[in-house]
Amino acid sequence: MAEPFTHRLRVRFHECDVQGVVFNAHYLTYIDIAITELWRAALGGYDAMLERGVDIVVADAHLHFHGGGRFDQELTVEVAFTRMGTTSIVSANRILYGDTTLVEVEMVHVTVDRSTMIKTPIPEWLREALSPWLVGARQR
Amino acid sequence: MAEPFTHRLRVRFHECDVQGVVFNAHYLTYIDIAITELWRAALGGYDAMLERGVDIVVADAHLHFHGGGRFDQELTVEVAFTRMGTTSIVSANRILYGDTTLVEVEMVHVTVDRSTMIKTPIPEWLREALSPWLVGARQR
Amino acid sequence: MAEPFTHRLRVRFHECDVQGVVFNAHYLTYIDIAITELWRAALGGYDAMLERGVDIVVADAHLHFHGGGRFDQELTVEVAFTRMGTTSIVSANRILYGDTTLVEVEMVHVTVDRSTMIKTPIPEWLREALSPWLVGARQR
Amino acid sequence: MAEPFTHRLRVRFHECDVQGVVFNAHYLTYIDIAITELWRAALGGYDAMLERGVDIVVADAHLHFHGGGRFDQELTVEVAFTRMGTTSIVSANRILYGDTTLVEVEMVHVTVDRSTMIKTPIPEWLREALSPWLVGARQR
Repeated sequence: MAEPFTHRLRVRFHECDVQGVVFNAHYLTYIDIAITELWRAALGGYDAMLERGVDIVVADAHLHFHGGGRFDQELTVEVAFTRMGTTSIVSANRILYGDTTLVEVEMVHVTVDRSTMIKTPIPEWLREALSPWLVGARQR
Repeated sequence: MAEPFTHRLRVRFHECDVQGVVFNAHYLTYIDIAITELWRAALGGYDAMLERGVDIVVADAHLHFHGGGRFDQELTVEVAFTRMGTTSIVSANRILYGDTTLVEVEMVHVTVDRSTMIKTPIPEWLREALSPWLVGARQR
Repeated sequence: MAEPFTHRLRVRFHECDVQGVVFNAHYLTYIDIAITELWRAALGGYDAMLERGVDIVVADAHLHFHGGGRFDQELTVEVAFTRMGTTSIVSANRILYGDTTLVEVEMVHVTVDRSTMIKTPIPEWLREALSPWLVGARQR
Repeated sequence: MAEPFTHRLRVRFHECDVQGVVFNAHYLTYIDIAITELWRAALGGYDAMLERGVDIVVADAHLHFHGGGRFDQELTVEVAFTRMGTTSIVSANRILYGDTTLVEVEMVHVTVDRSTMIKTPIPEWLREALSPWLVGARQR
């Protein structure tokens, strides 16, 4: 059974609002940062995908907020792929402080041709590179 | 039949990424900005709610991306309340460029006691102030 | 005697930090937003300059902080050009809340060839378009 | 001779603009992040200062831009204190990619009473905690 990819990051001062917690939009940025790190682990870097003519764009993001991260806390971002369709990569992500889940985020990324930004099937080399973090058995 | 609240804003240079489009997280910020303006129209300002001991927090946000805003474009943000529960305010929001919907966002805000940040029923004065933008008939 | 260009903008919730005031880096963004609006007044838009093969980059920025803007305040950003050299555009900028100066910012922008990003002399059409906001007599 | 404090960070996707480089305002944020890490090394964390009733605010920032950081590059932020006055902490900071200086930033921070935000002399314990990164002999 695959484990999620994890990335740790520290909440930055400017990311917290007057309420003392991370402003809601920044959690989407945290997911993006973790995805970048996962791509580094999978392919050596995001650019390695771009150089092969493929890019990814976000099609859907669903955030469930349970609590708020605070300045200087070290958070864990977990990324796990739950399904890979023809062009869509579905992930279940969590942002945690210690054992406490702060935010759950379901994302759908879609592979596109880098020059036209039109949908293109997930190449086999990408599918394979991401497979270590594919949890469950729902591939295609 | 109620109309959505609308707010117009211009895409800022630093909000666009290397792909030339607004970075995905900023759309959540755009919703927040429109909500602030709606509160101004409803109550005279966000602070008018805080002064009465109530705050709102985001419990859930679901974004569907159809296209990307670009630098210097003037976008329209639409906010319409679809349901008001005991403590939750559900809204259907759209971000458009001209007639083209770029992003649809379903949000759930929850009213909290400002000092404890614990859930508190939507006060009648807030329910009434927001009612001009309540579309549909699903209140409670 | 020329008057500064002015642009009004409202402090957004996510721009304020735990101290309740605008995070310092955002003032540079406010200047950038006002510069974009000045370019609109001067040339019809920033893109009109890009289409003619010229771009500008920031070479130097000096910020003096006197006070902090707060959430939902409407601030005024003033831009005045104090000198235009061969390739450099020097501006004196202020960010005010009412009559109170919050931040003074001296900026140096440099004109570059858009494709190479290498310094290029300020074109006459740009020099002329910006001249309404050139205060003082120190041009070249 | 003291060495500067150094902190390494990676350029995030959303920090880069359409020109492909880090947007200018974010370099001020990078300095803030490094200052936070320096405070951790000096005092165990920024909160350790707040708990003793002292905060710091930025009074002056002067940025000299020589080049631009790019997405996914790991940059080095150097912080060195060049002078400590009665209430002001002057620092010379650099942001580098490898051996190439991208941005130099001179900063002045001022110590304030945390509750009133009014200037207060740098406490001896803070002066001592920061002394490992005081370069030159210009203290008071």
